[in-house]
Amino acid sequence: MPRYKLTLEYTGTGYHGWQRTATGPSIQAAVEEACFRFCGSAVQAVTAGRTDAGVHASAQVVHVDFEKEYDPFVVMSALNFHLLGDGIYEENADVLRTIAVLAAEIVPDEFHARYSATARHYEYRILNRRAPTALHADRTWHVIEPLDVSAMQAAADLLVGTYDFGSFRDTKCQAKSPIKTLEYLNVHSEDDEVIITTGARSFLHHQVRIMAGTLRLCGNGKWSLQDLIHARDACDRKAAGPTAPPEGLTLVRVDYP
Amino acid sequence: MPRYKLTLEYTGTGYHGWQRTATGPSIQAAVEEACFRFCGSAVQAVTAGRTDAGVHASAQVVHVDFEKEYDPFVVMSALNFHLLGDGIYEENADVLRTIAVLAAEIVPDEFHARYSATARHYEYRILNRRAPTALHADRTWHVIEPLDVSAMQAAADLLVGTYDFGSFRDTKCQAKSPIKTLEYLNVHSEDDEVIITTGARSFLHHQVRIMAGTLRLCGNGKWSLQDLIHARDACDRKAAGPTAPPEGLTLVRVDYP
Repeated sequence: MPRYKLTLEYTGTGYHGWQRTATGPSIQAAVEEACFRFCGSAVQAVTAGRTDAGVHASAQVVHVDFEKEYDPFVVMSALNFHLLGDGIYEENADVLRTIAVLAAEIVPDEFHARYSATARHYEYRILNRRAPTALHADRTWHVIEPLDVSAMQAAADLLVGTYDFGSFRDTKCQAKSPIKTLEYLNVHSEDDEVIITTGARSFLHHQVRIMAGTLRLCGNGKWSLQDLIHARDACDRKAAGPTAPPEGLTLVRVDYP
Repeated sequence: MPRYKLTLEYTGTGYHGWQRTATGPSIQAAVEEACFRFCGSAVQAVTAGRTDAGVHASAQVVHVDFEKEYDPFVVMSALNFHLLGDGIYEENADVLRTIAVLAAEIVPDEFHARYSATARHYEYRILNRRAPTALHADRTWHVIEPLDVSAMQAAADLLVGTYDFGSFRDTKCQAKSPIKTLEYLNVHSEDDEVIITTGARSFLHHQVRIMAGTLRLCGNGKWSLQDLIHARDACDRKAAGPTAPPEGLTLVRVDYP
Protein backbone atom coordinates (compact mmCIF):
# COMPACT_ATOMS: atom_id res chain seq x y z
CA MET A 1 0.00 0.00 0.00
CA PRO A 2 2.04 3.01 -1.18
CA ARG A 3 1.53 6.06 1.00
CA TYR A 4 1.10 9.52 -0.50
CA LYS A 5 1.68 12.85 1.15
CA LEU A 6 -0.73 15.45 -0.21
CA THR A 7 -0.38 19.20 0.29
CA LEU A 8 -3.77 20.90 0.24
CA GLU A 9 -5.04 24.44 -0.10
CA TYR A 10 -8.64 25.10 0.89
CA THR A 11 -11.15 27.74 1.86
CA GLY A 12 -12.91 26.63 5.04
CA THR A 13 -15.94 28.79 4.32
CA GLY A 14 -19.00 26.58 4.02
CA TYR A 15 -17.27 23.48 5.45
CA HIS A 16 -17.85 22.12 8.93
CA GLY A 17 -14.09 21.86 9.37
CA TRP A 18 -11.60 19.18 8.43
CA GLN A 19 -13.19 16.30 10.26
CA ARG A 20 -15.92 14.18 8.71
CA THR A 21 -19.23 14.83 10.46
CA ALA A 22 -22.84 13.85 9.96
CA THR A 23 -23.95 17.47 10.23
CA GLY A 24 -22.55 18.86 7.00
CA PRO A 25 -19.75 19.00 4.43
CA SER A 26 -16.18 18.50 5.60
CA ILE A 27 -12.80 18.77 3.92
CA GLN A 28 -12.02 15.18 4.93
CA ALA A 29 -15.17 13.80 3.31
CA ALA A 30 -14.48 15.78 0.12
CA VAL A 31 -10.88 14.53 -0.10
CA GLU A 32 -11.85 10.92 0.65
CA GLU A 33 -14.64 11.09 -1.93
CA ALA A 34 -12.18 12.40 -4.55
CA CYS A 35 -9.77 9.57 -3.68
CA PHE A 36 -12.58 7.03 -4.00
CA ARG A 37 -13.56 8.40 -7.40
CA PHE A 38 -9.95 8.19 -8.49
CA CYS A 39 -8.99 4.71 -7.26
CA GLY A 40 -12.34 3.00 -6.71
CA SER A 41 -11.66 1.96 -3.11
CA ALA A 42 -12.42 3.57 0.23
CA VAL A 43 -9.45 5.62 1.41
CA GLN A 44 -8.88 7.27 4.76
CA ALA A 45 -7.30 10.73 4.74
CA VAL A 46 -5.16 11.50 7.82
CA THR A 47 -4.33 15.14 8.42
CA ALA A 48 -1.59 17.09 10.22
CA GLY A 49 -4.19 19.24 11.94
CA ARG A 50 -7.96 19.15 12.11
CA THR A 51 -8.93 22.71 11.21
CA ASP A 52 -12.20 24.11 12.61
CA ALA A 53 -15.25 25.09 10.59
CA GLY A 54 -14.46 28.22 8.56
CA VAL A 55 -10.66 27.95 8.98
CA HIS A 56 -8.56 27.94 5.81
CA ALA A 57 -5.34 26.24 4.78
CA SER A 58 -2.70 27.27 2.28
CA ALA A 59 -0.55 24.16 2.89
CA GLN A 60 -2.35 21.53 4.94
CA VAL A 61 -0.70 18.11 4.86
CA VAL A 62 -2.59 14.84 4.57
CA HIS A 63 -1.56 11.24 3.95
CA VAL A 64 -3.53 8.59 2.13
CA ASP A 65 -2.74 4.98 1.21
CA PHE A 66 -3.68 3.62 -2.21
CA GLU A 67 -3.81 -0.07 -3.04
CA LYS A 68 -1.47 0.37 -5.96
CA GLU A 69 1.19 2.78 -7.03
CA TYR A 70 0.36 5.73 -9.28
CA ASP A 71 2.54 8.50 -10.65
CA PRO A 72 2.27 11.30 -8.05
CA PHE A 73 1.51 13.83 -10.77
CA VAL A 74 -1.40 11.68 -11.92
CA VAL A 75 -2.66 11.54 -8.33
CA MET A 76 -2.50 15.33 -8.01
CA SER A 77 -4.21 15.97 -11.33
CA ALA A 78 -6.93 13.37 -10.83
CA LEU A 79 -7.77 14.53 -7.31
CA ASN A 80 -7.93 18.13 -8.48
CA PHE A 81 -10.29 17.06 -11.23
CA HIS A 82 -12.61 15.29 -8.81
CA LEU A 83 -12.36 18.01 -6.14
CA LEU A 84 -13.61 20.65 -8.54
CA GLY A 85 -17.02 19.05 -8.14
CA ASP A 86 -16.96 20.09 -4.49
CA GLY A 87 -16.67 23.77 -5.43
CA ILE A 88 -19.21 26.55 -5.12
CA TYR A 89 -21.48 27.19 -8.05
CA GLU A 90 -22.18 30.89 -8.48
CA GLU A 91 -24.48 32.45 -10.98
CA ASN A 92 -22.52 33.99 -13.86
CA ALA A 93 -19.23 32.49 -12.65
CA ASP A 94 -17.44 29.28 -13.35
CA VAL A 95 -17.49 26.88 -10.45
CA LEU A 96 -15.18 28.22 -7.76
CA ARG A 97 -12.73 25.64 -6.49
CA THR A 98 -12.71 25.28 -2.67
CA ILE A 99 -10.04 22.55 -2.32
CA ALA A 100 -6.85 22.20 -4.36
CA VAL A 101 -4.08 19.61 -4.19
CA LEU A 102 -0.82 21.58 -4.49
CA ALA A 103 1.51 18.60 -4.42
CA ALA A 104 1.50 14.80 -4.16
CA GLU A 105 4.51 12.64 -3.37
CA ILE A 106 5.20 9.06 -2.35
CA VAL A 107 6.49 8.83 1.22
CA PRO A 108 7.81 5.93 3.33
CA ASP A 109 5.22 3.87 5.23
CA GLU A 110 6.55 5.38 8.48
CA PHE A 111 5.44 8.85 7.42
CA HIS A 112 2.36 9.97 9.33
CA ALA A 113 0.80 13.36 8.55
CA ARG A 114 -0.07 13.94 12.18
CA TYR A 115 2.54 12.13 14.23
CA SER A 116 5.56 12.87 12.04
CA ALA A 117 4.88 16.61 12.00
CA THR A 118 7.46 18.62 13.94
CA ALA A 119 5.74 22.01 13.72
CA ARG A 120 2.53 23.72 12.62
CA HIS A 121 2.45 27.33 11.45
CA TYR A 122 -0.62 29.54 11.41
CA GLU A 123 -1.50 33.04 10.28
CA TYR A 124 -4.37 35.10 11.72
CA ARG A 125 -5.48 38.16 9.73
CA ILE A 126 -7.33 41.10 11.25
CA LEU A 127 -8.78 43.80 8.98
CA ASN A 128 -8.30 46.90 11.08
CA ARG A 129 -10.34 49.75 9.65
CA ARG A 130 -13.70 51.42 10.02
CA ALA A 131 -15.28 50.18 6.78
CA PRO A 132 -16.33 46.57 6.24
CA THR A 133 -14.80 44.57 3.41
CA ALA A 134 -16.04 42.70 0.37
CA LEU A 135 -12.73 41.49 -1.09
CA HIS A 136 -11.55 39.93 2.18
CA ALA A 137 -14.92 39.10 3.74
CA ASP A 138 -14.29 35.44 4.48
CA ARG A 139 -10.53 35.75 5.14
CA THR A 140 -10.25 38.36 7.89
CA TRP A 141 -11.63 39.32 11.28
CA HIS A 142 -12.99 42.84 10.99
CA VAL A 143 -11.89 44.90 14.01
CA ILE A 144 -12.89 48.55 13.93
CA GLU A 145 -10.98 50.17 16.78
CA PRO A 146 -7.36 51.02 15.98
CA LEU A 147 -4.89 48.37 17.10
CA ASP A 148 -1.42 49.19 18.38
CA VAL A 149 0.82 46.62 16.72
CA SER A 150 3.79 47.24 19.01
CA ALA A 151 1.61 46.77 22.11
CA MET A 152 0.34 43.53 20.60
CA GLN A 153 3.89 42.37 19.89
CA ALA A 154 4.98 43.18 23.46
CA ALA A 155 2.09 41.07 24.74
CA ALA A 156 2.81 38.31 22.22
CA ASP A 157 6.41 38.12 23.44
CA LEU A 158 5.07 37.10 26.86
CA LEU A 159 3.46 33.99 25.39
CA VAL A 160 6.52 32.67 23.57
CA GLY A 161 8.16 29.72 25.30
CA THR A 162 6.91 26.79 27.33
CA TYR A 163 3.81 27.48 29.41
CA ASP A 164 0.66 25.88 30.73
CA PHE A 165 -1.68 27.36 28.11
CA GLY A 166 -4.79 26.37 30.07
CA SER A 167 -6.21 29.88 29.61
CA PHE A 168 -5.83 29.54 25.84
CA ARG A 169 -7.62 26.25 25.24
CA ASP A 170 -11.26 25.68 24.47
CA THR A 171 -13.17 24.07 27.32
CA LYS A 172 -13.82 21.13 24.96
CA CYS A 173 -10.10 20.65 24.26
CA GLN A 174 -9.16 16.98 24.64
CA ALA A 175 -5.37 17.33 24.82
CA LYS A 176 -3.94 15.44 27.77
CA SER A 177 -1.65 18.28 28.77
CA PRO A 178 -2.13 22.04 28.41
CA ILE A 179 1.64 22.56 28.38
CA LYS A 180 2.88 23.67 24.97
CA THR A 181 5.96 25.39 23.62
CA LEU A 182 5.24 28.38 21.42
CA GLU A 183 8.20 28.88 19.06
CA TYR A 184 7.18 32.35 17.91
CA LEU A 185 4.21 34.70 17.96
CA ASN A 186 4.70 37.75 15.74
CA VAL A 187 2.45 40.69 14.93
CA HIS A 188 2.92 43.01 11.97
CA SER A 189 0.78 45.25 9.79
CA GLU A 190 0.32 45.23 6.02
CA ASP A 191 -1.84 47.99 4.54
CA ASP A 192 -4.97 47.96 6.72
CA GLU A 193 -4.43 44.47 8.07
CA VAL A 194 -2.81 43.32 11.30
CA ILE A 195 -1.33 39.87 10.83
CA ILE A 196 -0.43 37.47 13.61
CA THR A 197 1.90 34.58 12.74
CA THR A 198 2.72 31.73 15.07
CA GLY A 199 4.38 28.33 15.12
CA ALA A 200 4.67 25.43 17.56
CA ARG A 201 5.09 21.67 17.53
CA SER A 202 1.36 21.55 18.25
CA PHE A 203 -1.41 23.77 19.52
CA LEU A 204 -4.34 23.30 21.88
CA HIS A 205 -7.92 23.44 20.55
CA HIS A 206 -8.70 27.06 19.59
CA GLN A 207 -5.34 28.20 20.97
CA VAL A 208 -4.43 30.46 18.06
CA ARG A 209 -7.91 32.00 17.93
CA ILE A 210 -7.95 32.62 21.70
CA MET A 211 -4.48 34.18 21.49
CA ALA A 212 -5.71 36.41 18.64
CA GLY A 213 -8.81 37.43 20.61
CA THR A 214 -6.61 38.22 23.61
CA LEU A 215 -3.98 40.14 21.64
CA ARG A 216 -6.77 42.35 20.31
CA LEU A 217 -7.46 43.44 23.90
CA CYS A 218 -3.77 44.30 24.29
CA GLY A 219 -3.83 46.18 20.97
CA ASN A 220 -6.87 48.34 21.67
CA GLY A 221 -5.63 49.37 25.11
CA LYS A 222 -8.17 47.44 27.20
CA TRP A 223 -5.47 45.21 28.62
CA SER A 224 -2.05 46.03 30.01
CA LEU A 225 0.88 43.64 29.81
CA GLN A 226 0.17 42.84 33.48
CA ASP A 227 -3.34 41.74 32.49
CA LEU A 228 -1.85 39.47 29.84
CA ILE A 229 0.59 37.93 32.34
CA HIS A 230 -2.28 37.41 34.77
CA ALA A 231 -4.34 35.66 32.08
CA ARG A 232 -1.41 33.50 31.02
CA ASP A 233 -0.64 32.41 34.57
CA ALA A 234 -4.26 31.78 35.59
CA CYS A 235 -4.44 28.57 33.48
CA ASP A 236 -8.19 29.08 33.23
CA ARG A 237 -10.10 29.65 29.99
CA LYS A 238 -12.17 32.38 31.63
CA ALA A 239 -9.03 34.45 32.28
CA ALA A 240 -8.16 34.96 28.59
CA GLY A 241 -9.94 37.02 25.93
CA PRO A 242 -12.70 35.79 23.61
CA THR A 243 -12.07 33.27 20.83
CA ALA A 244 -11.51 35.18 17.59
CA PRO A 245 -13.71 34.04 14.67
CA PRO A 246 -12.47 31.25 12.38
CA GLU A 247 -12.42 33.16 9.09
CA GLY A 248 -9.22 35.05 10.00
CA LEU A 249 -7.23 31.85 10.51
CA THR A 250 -5.16 29.96 7.95
CA LEU A 251 -2.89 26.93 8.45
CA VAL A 252 0.10 27.99 6.36
CA ARG A 253 2.74 25.30 6.84
CA VAL A 254 3.47 21.95 8.47
CA ASP A 255 7.07 20.87 9.01
CA TYR A 256 8.45 17.33 8.81
CA PRO A 257 11.95 16.06 9.54
CA MET B 1 -29.28 68.10 -4.09
CA PRO B 2 -26.05 67.40 -2.21
CA ARG B 3 -23.68 65.17 -4.11
CA TYR B 4 -21.80 62.35 -2.42
CA LYS B 5 -18.63 60.67 -3.56
CA LEU B 6 -18.63 57.00 -2.54
CA THR B 7 -15.58 54.74 -2.58
CA LEU B 8 -16.56 51.12 -3.12
CA GLU B 9 -14.90 47.76 -2.73
CA TYR B 10 -16.56 44.81 -4.44
CA THR B 11 -16.07 41.28 -5.68
CA GLY B 12 -17.31 41.10 -9.26
CA THR B 13 -17.87 37.34 -9.05
CA GLY B 14 -21.53 36.62 -9.65
CA TYR B 15 -22.33 40.11 -10.96
CA HIS B 16 -22.92 40.96 -14.61
CA GLY B 17 -20.56 43.91 -14.20
CA TRP B 18 -21.07 47.46 -12.97
CA GLN B 19 -23.79 48.45 -15.41
CA ARG B 20 -27.44 47.76 -14.72
CA THR B 21 -28.75 45.10 -17.09
CA ALA B 22 -31.92 43.11 -17.52
CA THR B 23 -29.97 39.85 -17.68
CA GLY B 24 -28.75 39.59 -14.08
CA PRO B 25 -27.43 41.27 -10.96
CA SER B 26 -25.18 44.32 -11.34
CA ILE B 27 -23.16 46.42 -8.92
CA GLN B 28 -25.03 49.52 -10.09
CA ALA B 29 -28.44 48.03 -9.36
CA ALA B 30 -27.28 46.86 -5.91
CA VAL B 31 -25.89 50.31 -5.02
CA GLU B 32 -28.96 52.13 -6.32
CA GLU B 33 -31.24 49.75 -4.42
CA ALA B 34 -29.28 50.37 -1.20
CA CYS B 35 -29.56 54.13 -1.77
CA PHE B 36 -33.30 53.79 -2.34
CA ARG B 37 -33.72 51.81 0.86
CA PHE B 38 -31.75 54.47 2.71
CA CYS B 39 -33.37 57.66 1.39
CA GLY B 40 -36.69 56.47 -0.06
CA SER B 41 -36.16 58.00 -3.50
CA ALA B 42 -34.75 56.69 -6.76
CA VAL B 43 -31.07 57.57 -7.03
CA GLN B 44 -28.75 57.18 -9.98
CA ALA B 45 -25.23 55.96 -9.27
CA VAL B 46 -22.59 57.28 -11.71
CA THR B 47 -19.27 55.46 -11.75
CA ALA B 48 -15.68 56.29 -12.68
CA GLY B 49 -15.41 53.11 -14.71
CA ARG B 50 -17.89 50.46 -15.73
CA THR B 51 -16.15 47.25 -14.75
CA ASP B 52 -16.95 44.07 -16.69
CA ALA B 53 -18.69 40.98 -15.33
CA GLY B 54 -16.39 39.24 -12.85
CA VAL B 55 -13.99 42.19 -12.46
CA HIS B 56 -13.34 43.41 -8.89
CA ALA B 57 -12.70 46.81 -7.35
CA SER B 58 -10.79 47.76 -4.23
CA ALA B 59 -11.51 51.48 -4.64
CA GLN B 60 -14.12 52.19 -7.29
CA VAL B 61 -15.54 55.73 -7.19
CA VAL B 62 -19.21 56.55 -7.64
CA HIS B 63 -21.27 59.69 -7.18
CA VAL B 64 -24.91 59.89 -6.11
CA ASP B 65 -27.21 62.84 -5.39
CA PHE B 66 -29.56 62.74 -2.41
CA GLU B 67 -32.50 65.09 -2.01
CA LYS B 68 -31.32 66.20 1.39
CA GLU B 69 -28.08 66.37 3.27
CA TYR B 70 -26.98 63.55 5.54
CA ASP B 71 -23.88 63.10 7.64
CA PRO B 72 -21.44 61.23 5.32
CA PHE B 73 -20.72 58.71 8.05
CA VAL B 74 -24.44 57.95 8.29
CA VAL B 75 -24.54 57.47 4.51
CA MET B 76 -21.62 55.06 4.62
CA SER B 77 -23.02 53.05 7.52
CA ALA B 78 -26.57 52.91 6.17
CA LEU B 79 -25.49 51.86 2.68
CA ASN B 80 -23.23 49.17 4.13
CA PHE B 81 -26.17 47.90 6.15
CA HIS B 82 -28.42 47.67 3.11
CA LEU B 83 -25.68 46.26 0.85
CA LEU B 84 -25.12 43.31 3.15
CA GLY B 85 -28.42 41.97 1.85
CA ASP B 86 -26.80 41.67 -1.56
CA GLY B 87 -24.15 39.27 -0.24
CA ILE B 88 -23.73 35.57 -0.84
CA TYR B 89 -25.42 33.17 1.54
CA GLU B 90 -23.31 30.11 2.17
CA GLU B 91 -24.22 27.14 4.25
CA ASN B 92 -22.47 27.23 7.63
CA ALA B 93 -21.15 30.76 7.03
CA ASP B 94 -22.47 34.18 7.80
CA VAL B 95 -23.59 36.06 4.74
CA LEU B 96 -20.50 37.09 2.79
CA ARG B 97 -20.49 40.76 1.84
CA THR B 98 -19.88 41.37 -1.86
CA ILE B 99 -20.04 45.21 -1.90
CA ALA B 100 -18.67 47.56 0.78
CA VAL B 101 -18.70 51.36 0.97
CA LEU B 102 -15.22 52.33 2.20
CA ALA B 103 -15.84 56.08 2.37
CA ALA B 104 -18.53 58.68 1.72
CA GLU B 105 -17.96 62.41 1.43
CA ILE B 106 -19.88 65.47 0.25
CA VAL B 107 -18.39 66.89 -2.94
CA PRO B 108 -19.16 70.03 -4.98
CA ASP B 109 -21.91 69.75 -7.61
CA GLU B 110 -19.24 70.01 -10.31
CA PHE B 111 -17.68 66.73 -9.19
CA HIS B 112 -18.44 63.92 -11.62
CA ALA B 113 -17.19 60.43 -10.87
CA ARG B 114 -16.51 59.74 -14.54
CA TYR B 115 -15.66 63.09 -16.13
CA SER B 116 -13.64 64.54 -13.26
CA ALA B 117 -11.38 61.50 -12.99
CA THR B 118 -7.81 62.18 -14.10
CA ALA B 119 -6.54 58.60 -13.94
CA ARG B 120 -7.63 54.98 -13.42
CA HIS B 121 -5.34 52.35 -11.95
CA TYR B 122 -5.77 48.61 -12.39
CA GLU B 123 -4.05 45.48 -11.15
CA TYR B 124 -4.09 42.15 -12.99
CA ARG B 125 -3.06 39.06 -11.01
CA ILE B 126 -1.80 35.86 -12.62
CA LEU B 127 -1.31 32.76 -10.47
CA ASN B 128 1.74 31.19 -12.10
CA ARG B 129 2.16 27.62 -10.89
CA ARG B 130 1.24 24.10 -11.82
CA ALA B 131 -1.40 23.47 -9.17
CA PRO B 132 -4.83 25.10 -9.22
CA THR B 133 -5.91 27.33 -6.35
CA ALA B 134 -8.75 27.39 -3.86
CA LEU B 135 -7.81 30.47 -1.82
CA HIS B 136 -7.44 32.72 -4.88
CA ALA B 137 -9.89 30.99 -7.23
CA ASP B 138 -11.96 34.04 -8.16
CA ARG B 139 -9.13 36.59 -7.95
CA THR B 140 -6.43 35.29 -10.28
CA TRP B 141 -5.88 33.97 -13.78
CA HIS B 142 -4.29 30.56 -13.47
CA VAL B 143 -1.40 30.23 -15.95
CA ILE B 144 0.58 27.01 -15.72
CA GLU B 145 3.64 27.56 -17.93
CA PRO B 146 6.44 29.54 -16.22
CA LEU B 147 6.37 33.25 -17.04
CA ASP B 148 9.53 35.34 -17.41
CA VAL B 149 8.75 38.53 -15.54
CA SER B 150 11.63 40.50 -17.03
CA ALA B 151 10.59 39.54 -20.57
CA MET B 152 7.05 40.68 -19.72
CA GLN B 153 8.39 43.98 -18.36
CA ALA B 154 10.48 44.56 -21.49
CA ALA B 155 7.35 44.03 -23.58
CA ALA B 156 5.25 46.19 -21.26
CA ASP B 157 7.73 49.06 -21.66
CA LEU B 158 6.91 49.12 -25.36
CA LEU B 159 3.26 49.93 -24.60
CA VAL B 160 3.91 52.87 -22.28
CA GLY B 161 3.21 56.23 -23.87
CA THR B 162 0.72 57.54 -26.41
CA TYR B 163 -0.33 55.03 -29.06
CA ASP B 164 -3.24 53.97 -31.19
CA PHE B 165 -4.30 51.00 -29.03
CA GLY B 166 -6.60 49.64 -31.72
CA SER B 167 -5.08 46.17 -31.26
CA PHE B 168 -5.94 46.28 -27.56
CA ARG B 169 -9.62 47.17 -27.69
CA ASP B 170 -12.57 44.85 -27.82
CA THR B 171 -14.35 44.84 -31.16
CA LYS B 172 -17.43 46.15 -29.30
CA CYS B 173 -15.50 49.11 -27.84
CA GLN B 174 -17.46 52.32 -28.37
CA ALA B 175 -14.70 54.84 -27.64
CA LYS B 176 -14.46 57.47 -30.38
CA SER B 177 -10.70 57.29 -30.55
CA PRO B 178 -8.36 54.34 -29.94
CA ILE B 179 -5.54 56.73 -29.02
CA LYS B 180 -4.69 56.51 -25.32
CA THR B 181 -1.73 57.43 -23.16
CA LEU B 182 -0.52 54.67 -20.90
CA GLU B 183 1.24 56.24 -17.90
CA TYR B 184 2.82 53.01 -16.67
CA LEU B 185 2.60 49.25 -17.16
CA ASN B 186 4.63 47.31 -14.59
CA VAL B 187 5.12 43.59 -14.03
CA HIS B 188 6.42 42.06 -10.83
CA SER B 189 6.16 38.78 -8.98
CA GLU B 190 5.01 38.07 -5.42
CA ASP B 191 5.28 34.48 -4.19
CA ASP B 192 3.69 32.44 -7.00
CA GLU B 193 1.82 35.35 -8.55
CA VAL B 194 2.78 37.63 -11.43
CA ILE B 195 1.14 41.01 -10.98
CA ILE B 196 0.61 43.58 -13.71
CA THR B 197 -0.17 47.14 -12.62
CA THR B 198 -1.16 49.92 -14.97
CA GLY B 199 -2.54 53.45 -14.97
CA ALA B 200 -3.90 55.87 -17.57
CA ARG B 201 -6.35 58.74 -17.81
CA SER B 202 -8.71 56.20 -19.36
CA PHE B 203 -8.63 52.79 -20.99
CA LEU B 204 -10.36 51.24 -23.98
CA HIS B 205 -12.89 48.41 -23.49
CA HIS B 206 -10.98 45.28 -22.37
CA GLN B 207 -7.66 47.08 -22.85
CA VAL B 208 -6.09 45.89 -19.60
CA ARG B 209 -7.28 42.33 -20.11
CA ILE B 210 -6.00 42.23 -23.71
CA MET B 211 -2.66 43.66 -22.57
CA ALA B 212 -2.49 40.97 -19.86
CA GLY B 213 -3.34 38.23 -22.36
CA THR B 214 -0.65 39.56 -24.71
CA LEU B 215 2.02 39.99 -22.03
CA ARG B 216 1.50 36.33 -21.15
CA LEU B 217 2.65 35.43 -24.67
CA CYS B 218 5.77 37.54 -24.13
CA GLY B 219 6.33 35.90 -20.75
CA ASN B 220 6.07 32.30 -21.89
CA GLY B 221 8.39 32.84 -24.85
CA LYS B 222 5.82 32.50 -27.64
CA TRP B 223 6.28 36.11 -28.61
CA SER B 224 9.42 38.18 -29.11
CA LEU B 225 9.55 41.92 -28.52
CA GLN B 226 9.31 42.30 -32.31
CA ASP B 227 6.03 40.43 -32.25
CA LEU B 228 4.77 42.79 -29.58
CA ILE B 229 5.80 45.85 -31.60
CA HIS B 230 4.09 44.38 -34.64
CA ALA B 231 0.89 43.80 -32.66
CA ARG B 232 0.97 47.29 -31.19
CA ASP B 233 1.48 48.95 -34.56
CA ALA B 234 -1.10 46.86 -36.41
CA CYS B 235 -4.01 48.72 -34.74
CA ASP B 236 -6.14 45.63 -35.29
CA ARG B 237 -7.71 43.53 -32.52
CA LYS B 238 -6.71 40.32 -34.29
CA ALA B 239 -3.03 41.24 -34.02
CA ALA B 240 -2.91 41.16 -30.19
CA GLY B 241 -3.18 38.21 -27.82
CA PRO B 242 -6.38 36.82 -26.33
CA THR B 243 -8.41 38.72 -23.74
CA ALA B 244 -7.39 37.51 -20.27
CA PRO B 245 -10.31 36.40 -18.06
CA PRO B 246 -12.03 38.97 -15.83
CA GLU B 247 -11.35 37.39 -12.44
CA GLY B 248 -7.70 38.50 -12.42
CA LEU B 249 -8.59 42.18 -12.79
CA THR B 250 -9.19 44.71 -10.02
CA LEU B 251 -9.78 48.46 -10.29
CA VAL B 252 -7.54 49.70 -7.49
CA ARG B 253 -7.66 53.51 -7.63
CA VAL B 254 -9.23 56.46 -9.37
CA ASP B 255 -7.54 59.88 -9.19
CA TYR B 256 -9.27 63.26 -9.02
CA PRO B 257 -7.74 66.73 -9.06
